[in-house]
Amino acid sequence: MNIPLPSHPPLADDLVAIMKCRFGSRFAQGESIRVQHGRDESAHEPAPPDAVFFAGSTDEVAEVVRLCGQYRVPIIPYGAGSSVEGQVLAIHGGISIDLSRMNRILAIHGDDLDATVAAGVTRLQLNAALKGSGLFFPIDPGADASLGGMAATRASGTNAVRYGTMRDNVLAMTVVLADGRIIKTGGRARKSSAGYDLTRLLIGSEGTLGIITELTVRLHPIPEAMSAAVCAFPDIAAAVDTVIQSIQLGVPVARIELLDALTISAVNRHSHTTLRELPTLFFEFHGSPAAVSEQAQIVQGIASSFGGQEFAWATRNEDRSRLWQARHDAYFACLQLKPGCRAFPTDVCVPISRLAECIQATKDDIARVSIPIALFGHVGDGNFHLVVLVDPASASDMHEAEWINERLVERALAMSGTCTGEHGIGIGKTRFMVREHGVEAVAVMRAIKAALDPTNLLNPGKILPPGASS
Amino acid sequence: MNIPLPSHPPLADDLVAIMKCRFGSRFAQGESIRVQHGRDESAHEPAPPDAVFFAGSTDEVAEVVRLCGQYRVPIIPYGAGSSVEGQVLAIHGGISIDLSRMNRILAIHGDDLDATVAAGVTRLQLNAALKGSGLFFPIDPGADASLGGMAATRASGTNAVRYGTMRDNVLAMTVVLADGRIIKTGGRARKSSAGYDLTRLLIGSEGTLGIITELTVRLHPIPEAMSAAVCAFPDIAAAVDTVIQSIQLGVPVARIELLDALTISAVNRHSHTTLRELPTLFFEFHGSPAAVSEQAQIVQGIASSFGGQEFAWATRNEDRSRLWQARHDAYFACLQLKPGCRAFPTDVCVPISRLAECIQATKDDIARVSIPIALFGHVGDGNFHLVVLVDPASASDMHEAEWINERLVERALAMSGTCTGEHGIGIGKTRFMVREHGVEAVAVMRAIKAALDPTNLLNPGKILPPGASS
Repeated sequence: MNIPLPSHPPLADDLVAIMKCRFGSRFAQGESIRVQHGRDESAHEPAPPDAVFFAGSTDEVAEVVRLCGQYRVPIIPYGAGSSVEGQVLAIHGGISIDLSRMNRILAIHGDDLDATVAAGVTRLQLNAALKGSGLFFPIDPGADASLGGMAATRASGTNAVRYGTMRDNVLAMTVVLADGRIIKTGGRARKSSAGYDLTRLLIGSEGTLGIITELTVRLHPIPEAMSAAVCAFPDIAAAVDTVIQSIQLGVPVARIELLDALTISAVNRHSHTTLRELPTLFFEFHGSPAAVSEQAQIVQGIASSFGGQEFAWATRNEDRSRLWQARHDAYFACLQLKPGCRAFPTDVCVPISRLAECIQATKDDIARVSIPIALFGHVGDGNFHLVVLVDPASASDMHEAEWINERLVERALAMSGTCTGEHGIGIGKTRFMVREHGVEAVAVMRAIKAALDPTNLLNPGKILPPGASS
Repeated sequence: MNIPLPSHPPLADDLVAIMKCRFGSRFAQGESIRVQHGRDESAHEPAPPDAVFFAGSTDEVAEVVRLCGQYRVPIIPYGAGSSVEGQVLAIHGGISIDLSRMNRILAIHGDDLDATVAAGVTRLQLNAALKGSGLFFPIDPGADASLGGMAATRASGTNAVRYGTMRDNVLAMTVVLADGRIIKTGGRARKSSAGYDLTRLLIGSEGTLGIITELTVRLHPIPEAMSAAVCAFPDIAAAVDTVIQSIQLGVPVARIELLDALTISAVNRHSHTTLRELPTLFFEFHGSPAAVSEQAQIVQGIASSFGGQEFAWATRNEDRSRLWQARHDAYFACLQLKPGCRAFPTDVCVPISRLAECIQATKDDIARVSIPIALFGHVGDGNFHLVVLVDPASASDMHEAEWINERLVERALAMSGTCTGEHGIGIGKTRFMVREHGVEAVAVMRAIKAALDPTNLLNPGKILPPGASS
């Protein structure tokens, strides 16, 4: 939260003149556009860029990156603005490169189960384009994020337990480097052992090593049968134990999501559902009709042995959609728990055997603070979120939020987990990088950053903690 | 094949003295040990190291790496010696660091479905240790390779179509860097968005960026039911079309392997099987009994529609094992097709929609040469191998082998595929790196190499083609 924002010089007149002449209204310096590009879905203090460039092509991105290099101007890639750790904030000023107009679906190779899209295409847009193809793209962070942004933050979502994260579902990318060179990484083969895995290096690099402008993603056949269910539990431990046992037994659940009682009450109000306000699991099973019923039976047995109530089924498509829409809106639902507040979202991920203990200890911490905190998440992966609701003007709220977050991360790291399962580092978690990875591994990351972006113009201040470079 | 071997000075007397004093007989300079460490399973001309160090711990590896740095001596990590593109050859001399004695299984976390092992542990050793746990480790290259070596070459095998490759199944690693620093990458959480993915960068880096000394791998529950079957086809196109349709329908086959008629005849002789000498698919289905029978039924239907014969089932464990042992021995079986020959193995991987065309064109090429060439592979991934049998002393054999390989790779690249699905680059495929990735992406790889190993002592000459550094 508290990285100081160094003052920076305004954009050079020459650069502004070139950009205006070259791109007209696609180079914007108006305050409202700058403000809009200077914040994300988090509680981090907004930091608007000096200007916004609405890119139309990879070549244009490369051209602007070269210009920014000449004028030593920071570059912040911007997709849908739905990051939650301040990834898009222009904390050192500079030009925000907005890729949202690069939103063409370039190719759908149904026979190969892949699609190539420009970086600004969103996950819902891709799935809409896939309608009728029998295929879908499973990765679903809460927001309708851009696929470029999702790759840049190594996003996942509710389907990751079965279908993997962006790490597993990106085959190839087009990337503009810090000096304006354009590279292609990966390819359309399902696997390759041909040299360094630049695709995976760039996924999760949050725009600090290059700007993703196109990507080829894996698609999956829509299962013959899909069935969703909701099950309430007497306490959160019972719900988590159900998850752990299902995963350990290898049941290939497609989704297995935990919402605590507070989240359920927020969802009820926001999405007009009538769920019992108890710790609840949302399940989804994919496969053939027989496989789905078999999986459901096993998991129902486990749930019932831990005191879970009857499964409430949603088998019709519209009921399933409504259920998952409610789940995806949980974050926004929670925002309404404290009117006028901002949300301070955080997430961790731990080995599944430690999940119950980690969640219980976190619940104990939550009981010790005054601010409302909702807990929910992708528990099949060992991943869960807190949405901490704060009045940013209240020092006490901010102090409590920091305390909760610090304790949560320490706990996850002590359990061989990670400080973020899917939100990324941004500016919010740079201070945990050394604790999680050690001084030397962070030095290696710095060395890679220095090799690929020696003047530190690509999204400076993100991921790597301030400190001596290696 | 034809990278010139620069002459290099002998090891400095001081270094030899220190190594002998420090490690006694674990530092070996005898010719037979050097010769053994200077070759792999390929036809590449052997290049023995100046000495071999049998490492006992990560700290020892770090110590020797630092010493080698002081004396500017190349370091070649060595696991089981089962690489097939010359990865372990000491083409610039130096010390081979043999990790095979670092073969302790450090932890099995059954509840979390992971295990931590020293790099010298082999895949069969790990699976033996898992006996009775209900878990297994699926990645199975033909040889009983070391897990460190498998990570270093991004290995896969017959199960990859369902369980992924080493890329997907390594969670964390301990790595010794070029200057002797030790880092830990990744962690035991199932997913993370915390910074650059050093694990994935190092997987497939073939010892050129660091030496993997320990790794944590994912384990998988042994399916309730497993069933294998063999099905012969009138021609190779029918077999490949069966694969393509099964994959496109999303049938979650665990294994789907193609062996051409020549390979089957070699297998029959080597493994005393009585398979019909026709293009043949080996299948395996994993899941609940109902799911297995359902998958088998679908695939049988597809196979029969393409003219496949009756499935011959192997449901008893010992029959399944015998079948897959025969498949794993196919490489060695093929070696016996031409007594006294050496095998020149190569592999490519293409998008599944191009697989039939790629295999047919390759078969047409094979018909045009005089040397025996077996074709088999992991066709569910779009990946297949040629085993080209050559007399290395015959210029004509070598010329034909090169011609076949060159055409194969060009064809795969033209189809958006890769020059190697799982064998890696080593010294055998460096010349294809720029063709596959482009000049600029290879320059990025060089920049990373220069950042992490500025004096180019870690397995020099592997992966990156000779040429100007970026």
